[in-house]
Amino acid sequence: MYLDELSTKEFKKRINKNTVVILPVGIIEEHGTALPLCTDSLQSEYVAERVAEKVKGYILPPIRYGVCSSTKNFPGSISLSFDTMRKLIYDILSELIRNNVRKVVVLSGHAGRMHMSAIRLAAKKIVNEFNVKIIVLSDYELLYDEKGRKFLKKTGIPEYDGHGGAIEASRIMISRPDLIKCKGRRAKKSLPKIPRYHILRNPEKYFPEGIIGDPSTASKEKGEKITDFVVKEIVRLIKEM
Amino acid sequence: MYLDELSTKEFKKRINKNTVVILPVGIIEEHGTALPLCTDSLQSEYVAERVAEKVKGYILPPIRYGVCSSTKNFPGSISLSFDTMRKLIYDILSELIRNNVRKVVVLSGHAGRMHMSAIRLAAKKIVNEFNVKIIVLSDYELLYDEKGRKFLKKTGIPEYDGHGGAIEASRIMISRPDLIKCKGRRAKKSLPKIPRYHILRNPEKYFPEGIIGDPSTASKEKGEKITDFVVKEIVRLIKEM
Amino acid sequence: MYLDELSTKEFKKRINKNTVVILPVGIIEEHGTALPLCTDSLQSEYVAERVAEKVKGYILPPIRYGVCSSTKNFPGSISLSFDTMRKLIYDILSELIRNNVRKVVVLSGHAGRMHMSAIRLAAKKIVNEFNVKIIVLSDYELLYDEKGRKFLKKTGIPEYDGHGGAIEASRIMISRPDLIKCKGRRAKKSLPKIPRYHILRNPEKYFPEGIIGDPSTASKEKGEKITDFVVKEIVRLIKEM
Amino acid sequence: MYLDELSTKEFKKRINKNTVVILPVGIIEEHGTALPLCTDSLQSEYVAERVAEKVKGYILPPIRYGVCSSTKNFPGSISLSFDTMRKLIYDILSELIRNNVRKVVVLSGHAGRMHMSAIRLAAKKIVNEFNVKIIVLSDYELLYDEKGRKFLKKTGIPEYDGHGGAIEASRIMISRPDLIKCKGRRAKKSLPKIPRYHILRNPEKYFPEGIIGDPSTASKEKGEKITDFVVKEIVRLIKEM
Amino acid sequence: MYLDELSTKEFKKRINKNTVVILPVGIIEEHGTALPLCTDSLQSEYVAERVAEKVKGYILPPIRYGVCSSTKNFPGSISLSFDTMRKLIYDILSELIRNNVRKVVVLSGHAGRMHMSAIRLAAKKIVNEFNVKIIVLSDYELLYDEKGRKFLKKTGIPEYDGHGGAIEASRIMISRPDLIKCKGRRAKKSLPKIPRYHILRNPEKYFPEGIIGDPSTASKEKGEKITDFVVKEIVRLIKEM
Amino acid sequence: MYLDELSTKEFKKRINKNTVVILPVGIIEEHGTALPLCTDSLQSEYVAERVAEKVKGYILPPIRYGVCSSTKNFPGSISLSFDTMRKLIYDILSELIRNNVRKVVVLSGHAGRMHMSAIRLAAKKIVNEFNVKIIVLSDYELLYDEKGRKFLKKTGIPEYDGHGGAIEASRIMISRPDLIKCKGRRAKKSLPKIPRYHILRNPEKYFPEGIIGDPSTASKEKGEKITDFVVKEIVRLIKEM
Repeated sequence: MYLDELSTKEFKKRINKNTVVILPVGIIEEHGTALPLCTDSLQSEYVAERVAEKVKGYILPPIRYGVCSSTKNFPGSISLSFDTMRKLIYDILSELIRNNVRKVVVLSGHAGRMHMSAIRLAAKKIVNEFNVKIIVLSDYELLYDEKGRKFLKKTGIPEYDGHGGAIEASRIMISRPDLIKCKGRRAKKSLPKIPRYHILRNPEKYFPEGIIGDPSTASKEKGEKITDFVVKEIVRLIKEM
Repeated sequence: MYLDELSTKEFKKRINKNTVVILPVGIIEEHGTALPLCTDSLQSEYVAERVAEKVKGYILPPIRYGVCSSTKNFPGSISLSFDTMRKLIYDILSELIRNNVRKVVVLSGHAGRMHMSAIRLAAKKIVNEFNVKIIVLSDYELLYDEKGRKFLKKTGIPEYDGHGGAIEASRIMISRPDLIKCKGRRAKKSLPKIPRYHILRNPEKYFPEGIIGDPSTASKEKGEKITDFVVKEIVRLIKEM
Repeated sequence: MYLDELSTKEFKKRINKNTVVILPVGIIEEHGTALPLCTDSLQSEYVAERVAEKVKGYILPPIRYGVCSSTKNFPGSISLSFDTMRKLIYDILSELIRNNVRKVVVLSGHAGRMHMSAIRLAAKKIVNEFNVKIIVLSDYELLYDEKGRKFLKKTGIPEYDGHGGAIEASRIMISRPDLIKCKGRRAKKSLPKIPRYHILRNPEKYFPEGIIGDPSTASKEKGEKITDFVVKEIVRLIKEM
Repeated sequence: MYLDELSTKEFKKRINKNTVVILPVGIIEEHGTALPLCTDSLQSEYVAERVAEKVKGYILPPIRYGVCSSTKNFPGSISLSFDTMRKLIYDILSELIRNNVRKVVVLSGHAGRMHMSAIRLAAKKIVNEFNVKIIVLSDYELLYDEKGRKFLKKTGIPEYDGHGGAIEASRIMISRPDLIKCKGRRAKKSLPKIPRYHILRNPEKYFPEGIIGDPSTASKEKGEKITDFVVKEIVRLIKEM
Repeated sequence: MYLDELSTKEFKKRINKNTVVILPVGIIEEHGTALPLCTDSLQSEYVAERVAEKVKGYILPPIRYGVCSSTKNFPGSISLSFDTMRKLIYDILSELIRNNVRKVVVLSGHAGRMHMSAIRLAAKKIVNEFNVKIIVLSDYELLYDEKGRKFLKKTGIPEYDGHGGAIEASRIMISRPDLIKCKGRRAKKSLPKIPRYHILRNPEKYFPEGIIGDPSTASKEKGEKITDFVVKEIVRLIKEM
Repeated sequence: MYLDELSTKEFKKRINKNTVVILPVGIIEEHGTALPLCTDSLQSEYVAERVAEKVKGYILPPIRYGVCSSTKNFPGSISLSFDTMRKLIYDILSELIRNNVRKVVVLSGHAGRMHMSAIRLAAKKIVNEFNVKIIVLSDYELLYDEKGRKFLKKTGIPEYDGHGGAIEASRIMISRPDLIKCKGRRAKKSLPKIPRYHILRNPEKYFPEGIIGDPSTASKEKGEKITDFVVKEIVRLIKEM
C-alpha cells in the first residue's frame, strides 16, 4: 500500500495510468495542550490508509511539514515558507507524471488558507502543463462545506469547533489515542475572536490557548463517524475523476 | 523521541539549547530488484532512532524525498530538484532555530553528490546567519572515509560494494526484513563502470541492473555490525559539537 | 484625495503616520454578457472613494490587474501570475513605509482565492518586517461572512449569488451605469456546479455563461444598500486599527 | 476605447490580430514643487487617448507605477523594483498574446534608464517567444532623438530642459491644468549637475530642487505643439509595424 | 598590477580602503569581418592597464562575457542573460567589500544598453547596502557624451561611427594589431538604420554587415588619441571619487 | 586557439559539431604564502592550452571566478555564490549550443565540492535539454581517483598533499614560475585536521596556514610529470566522447 515499499520492478508492474496515488500532507503545529504537534499529520495519514484500501491506491511517504499561519509563533510550530511548500508539491507531482501516474490525490490534514494555496498553486501548474487528474483537499474543507456542516450538526459537533477542538481530538482518539495528553487536567473550551481582515504580526495574542472549540467533548464514537464521513466523500471524489 | 508527538507545552519544557535534534532524510529511489525504493530512508530512520536513544535527542518527522542522480530515470525514482531540497532543509533548520534549538544533525540515508550538496548548501547558509552547530552527513560517507574503509575490510565487505549492494541489503535485513524482495531468485552481483566525468543524459544505460555490488552476500550479522559502527561514529560526532 | 495628485512638498506636509492610505485593486476579467471586464475594478475604486472621504484618507492609483482563476480562459481575461501580484503589492507597501505611512488598506474588488492569497502573502511579509497596520480585504469577503450573509438575506439577495450576479450588476448600476451591457436582451440566471476539489484545466467548461447568479434581478437600490454596508464595515475596520 | 470597458463578448468580437493595444505606463515620482507626483502618468495617458483615436486602438488600464532612479529618495516617490516592473509588463503582454493580440505599444511617460530597461527586457522576452509586434517607448525618448531635438529647438525649448521642466509643465497645462501647483509662487529654474558615471546612494543631494529646467517658461501652446509632435510620431511608428 | 597575482599575505598588506580596484568587462560578440569577437574585451583590458598604472590601482581578472543585444544572433556571439550578468557583478563587488575594498571601477568595453543596465543594477544594489564608491562606465559612453563628441569631431571621426567602425578598429590597431583580420580585402563602410523603438526578434536583418561605421578609415594614430582621451577622463573620474 | 580571437566569419567557417571547445574555470582564492590567489586559474589555463593543441580544439576566455568554501574568509578570496556560478556556466553552455557546438569540456582548476556541484548542475541541465556531450572535471579529481593516486605515489607525492601543497606549487613552477612567492623564506608543511561533517562558520580556524601539504617539496620536474599525466587523461576522455 505504501508506494516506496515497492521495488523498481514491482513499481513498473503495478503502477499505471489508472493507479490512484495519495500524498498525505501534514504539519508540525501547535494544537493546544491536549493534542500533539503532529495532530494534522495523523489525521491525513489515517484517512489516506482507509481511502487507499477502498480504491486499491498507493500512498506516498507522508510529508509532515506544512505552512503555519496563525499558530506560527507558538513553541513547536515548524513552518515551511509558501514557496518551499509549493515547489515541494510541484516536484513530487511532476515526478509522478514522469512515472506515468495520472491520478493523484493530495490530502492535507491541515486546512490553513496559505498552506492550501501553496499546494493548489503547484497542482494548477501541473494541470496546465500535463493532462492529468489531481484532487487537492483538506478533509477539513469537506467538513465545512454545505454537506459537511449538515453532517457535523447531526453528529452533535457545534458550529464553532475548529483548530484543536472536539473534531480533532475525537479523530486522534481513534488514530493515536496514546498521544492524547490530558492526563490529570482537561483542555478547556476556547472561542477566541481573531480579527479577520487585519494582517497580524502576533496572531497568538488573540489566541492564547491556541485552540478553537472544546476538545473535552471529544469521543471515539465521534472520531469514527467523522472519519467514515470523510473517507466516503473522498472515495466519491476519486470515483468522479 | 519523535519531536512532533510532543504538545506545544511539552515542547517548550523539554526542548532547549542543549537538545540534539535529528532530521532523517531519505529518498524514493530505485535500489535493484532485491530492495525497496525506500531503502535509504529506512537506514537513516533506523540509525536516527538508535542515535537519539543514546544522546537523549529528538527526531523530526523523516523526509523521504531527496535528489536522485544516476538513478533518476528508473521506474519508481521520485526526485526533488536541487533547489527544492535546499529550500526544504533551509526552512526546517531556520524554524528549529526560531524554536531555540542549537544542535542539529541532518542524517541522510542517501549519499548522492547533488543530494548532499543541496543539504550542505542549506546548512552553510544557516551557519553563516546564526550561531548554531549543525552536522550534515550520510552514513555512507562515514563508511567510505578512511576509518570506515578499514572497518568494512574487517567486516568482509568488498571495496566495490555500493548502491543496492551488500551493505544496504544487510542493513534492511535488520531494520525491515519483510521488505527484502528476493523470493525465488537472487539479486546478482553487478559492477558497472559509469563514466565519471562525462555528464550523462541516460546514466541507466551504463547501469542496467541499477546496483553496484552483490546483495546476495548480505547478512543480518553484517547489518548489525555496520549499524553499530555508524551509530558509534555519529554519537562521537555529536559529543564533539 | 488621490495621493499622486499631490506634489512632493504637499506629500511631505500631509502624509504622516496617522494617514490612512487605500490601495484599490481590481482585475480585467470576464463578467458575463451584462457586465464589463472592469467590473471588479469599478467596485473597489468606488468604495475606496467613499471610504477615503469618511476617514480623510488618500487613495493610491488603482491597480486594475489581478490573478484570474476559474475565468482565466475566457476572452478578455488578463491575469497576472501569482508571483507578480505578490511582488507588486509588496513593493508598493514597502515604498509607503519608506514614506512614513503606517496605516494601509488594500481593497480588492476581486475575491478569488489565489488573488487574495497573493496579496495577503505580500502584506504578511511586510507586517513581519515592519511595525505597521495593514488591512487586506475584498468587499466580497465582507458580504459572505456571517454579518454580511444576514445583510444580504435582508436585502433580498439570494444565497447563491456570486460572480457576475445580482450583487455585482447592482453595484455597477450606481458606479458606472453606462457600462451595463444588456441592451435588447437580458442576462440569464446561471447556477453552474464547478467541481470544488478537482484541479481544473478548463474550468470554463463547467461555467459556460461565466456567471453565478442572476444579474437580471439587479437594481440601483440594491447597489446603494450594498455599497453603504460595505463602506460602513470598512470604516469600522479602519477605526479598529 | 478602454479595453476593460468591453464585456467578454464584445472583446471577442472587436479584438483581433490587427487591433493595436496601447499600455500606458506612468510612475509616482517627485516632480518639483510645480507639478504633481503623477506628472508622467498624465502625459502617457493623454497621449495614449490621442493615439488610440487616430489608429482606432484600445487602451489597457494604465499602470501608474514605475521604477524611480535619481528621484527615489524624495518624499512621495513610490518605486517598483526592477524585477517587479519586468514581470508585470511580461505578464500583461503574454496575456494579450493568449487573447490573440499581435500589436502592442507600451507607452511610458517616464523615461528613466532602469525603468525603460525593465520594460524592454520584458518585451524582448515576449518577442523571442512569440511572433508579435511590440513597440516600447517613452515619449521623452522621441523628443530627445535627432528629429525631436530639432523640433524642440524650433518650439523654443532649451536643450537643457528635462525632468520637471518646461516640457512637462507645458504638457500638464493641457491635460490636467488643475494640478499645476504654483499658485502664488513660481517654480525656479534649476540646472543641477548630477555626476554621470558614479553610482550614487543619495542622488538627491546633487539635485535639491528635484527638477532640471525651467517650468516657469511653460505654456499651453508649447504643451499642444509637443503633444501633437509626439502623437504624430507614435502614429507613424504604429503604421510601420 | 593584477590583483590575483598577489598571495593572500600580499593582498592583506597592499589592499586597503584607498586602493582603486578595476574590473574590466568585455564580451564575445560579432564585430564584422575586420575585427575579432573579443574586440570590446581588448579595449577595456588595455585601458584598465593604462589607468591602473596612473592611479596605482589593481586589476581584477577580466570578465570576457557580457550581454549581447542587436548582435545576439550572429555566429560567435556568446551572450549572458541579463540576470546572470547582474548577479556576477554583484557577487564580485560584494566580495571586494568583504575584503575592505572601498573604491571600484567597473570598466566595460561593451556599451549595450541592457549590458550596462545589468551592471548598473548590481552596482546600485551594492551602493544602497554599503558605504562604498563605485564608478560604472563603458569607455564608449565617454566618447558619446558632450565632451567626447567634441573630441571625436576634432580627431576626424564621423558622428555616425559606432559598433565595429573606425574607433574600434583604430583601438585594436594599438592593443592587438595581430587580430585585425582584413588581409586582402577591406571592411566596407556600413550605415544601417536599425528601427529604434520596435522590439526586434531578428535585429541582424537590419544590420547584415554587423557594423556601423567605416573601419577602413582606422589608424594607429587615431587609436592612440582615443585611448589617451579615455584614460585621461577615467583618471579624472577616479580622482573625483 | 582562443575562440574569441576569431571574427564572426572565421567562427562560422571553423566551428562546427565536431569542434571541441574548452572552458577553463579558475578561482581567486587564498593559496598560502607561497602561491598566488590565481593558482588554480593558472593550472586550468595551462592545461587547456596543452589539451587544445592536441585535440585541435578552441579555448573560451577563462573564467577566473569560482566558489570558495573552506578558504572563503581568508584575505583575497573572492567567491561567487553557488547560484551565480551555476547560471554563468549554464548561459555559456547554452550559447555554445546555439552556435552549433556539441562537444564541450569544462575544465576547472579548483576542485571544491560546492564549486564543482554548481558547474555540474548547470551541465546536467544542459544535457537534459539538448543532445550534447559535456565533460566536467577538475584536474584535481583526476589526480585523486584510483589511477591518479597510483601515479602520485610513483611521482613521490605524499597522499596527504592537497590545497596549496607540493602538487600545486610544482605546477605553478612550470606555468608561471615568476609567481612563486617564497623569496627568503620557505612555506612550511601543514597538515590541518578540518572536521569533516560539521558545518563550519569559520573553517580558517582549523586551517591557519591555509594549506594542506608541503609546497617546499615542489619541483619543476614534478610539475611537468603531473601536467603530462593530466593532459593525457583529458585527451583520452575527449576521445571517448
